[in-house]
Amino acid sequence: MSTKQNIEEGSEFIPKFNDDGLIPAIAQDAKTGQVLMVAYMNRQALDLTIQTGYATYFSRSRQKLWKKGQESGHFQKVEKILVDCDQDCLILKVTIDAGQCHVGYQSCFYRALKTGSSKDLQFVAEKVYDPKKTYKR
Amino acid sequence: MSTKQNIEEGSEFIPKFNDDGLIPAIAQDAKTGQVLMVAYMNRQALDLTIQTGYATYFSRSRQKLWKKGQESGHFQKVEKILVDCDQDCLILKVTIDAGQCHVGYQSCFYRALKTGSSKDLQFVAEKVYDPKKTYKR
Repeated sequence: MSTKQNIEEGSEFIPKFNDDGLIPAIAQDAKTGQVLMVAYMNRQALDLTIQTGYATYFSRSRQKLWKKGQESGHFQKVEKILVDCDQDCLILKVTIDAGQCHVGYQSCFYRALKTGSSKDLQFVAEKVYDPKKTYKR
Repeated sequence: MSTKQNIEEGSEFIPKFNDDGLIPAIAQDAKTGQVLMVAYMNRQALDLTIQTGYATYFSRSRQKLWKKGQESGHFQKVEKILVDCDQDCLILKVTIDAGQCHVGYQSCFYRALKTGSSKDLQFVAEKVYDPKKTYKR
């Protein structure tokens, strides 16, 4: 039985999927600690990730499994999977060879809210590759 | 109008809340890069966070606003708010003075899946405070 005690203090992996059958997964650069992206996994995506050692997500917009890198070639090699206290969120510590965001940046988090503003963003990163070239293949 | 171009390449902050009116927010230690926790914000929680400079979330279990630290004293001072490409996820870069997880750890992510296992977790952190004492106040 999954008690609060088990879930929070135990050593059994009991990932909690939401009503849509999904759990959010944060991909974090294993070397630098930079958060690269957040995506979602269903049970199958998680199993594939564990089995293959490469991140597979479930695309909510396309409603299908999506191995990160299958189009761009920018795979995520999973070094470690962490789970939070209530086991409803994962971190994948990943090794990457190139930019991870489809817009062309290393991380999807390339903009920050300007200090003192609630509406204006500033860019805090430079593009590291040209998505037009990458996604043509 | 919020086009894909605007959302991904623009400098207007247009956070996308899900069907429940929530957006996930990753609290990341501004100094170390450690991911501390993931919680959710509704529009009001986000506005309060921006206005006050301290993280306020929306508790899905209690269905109410929750200023992180209001019970534990472990507030999160927000140094920067980042948003991802499709603007449906936030990172709060925070400064903290003590452990952030209610179980007693610095980070909620204190367990990792054992290498080669799909079921067994190992603890990868030590508790940094005693939640029984902290949450008694």
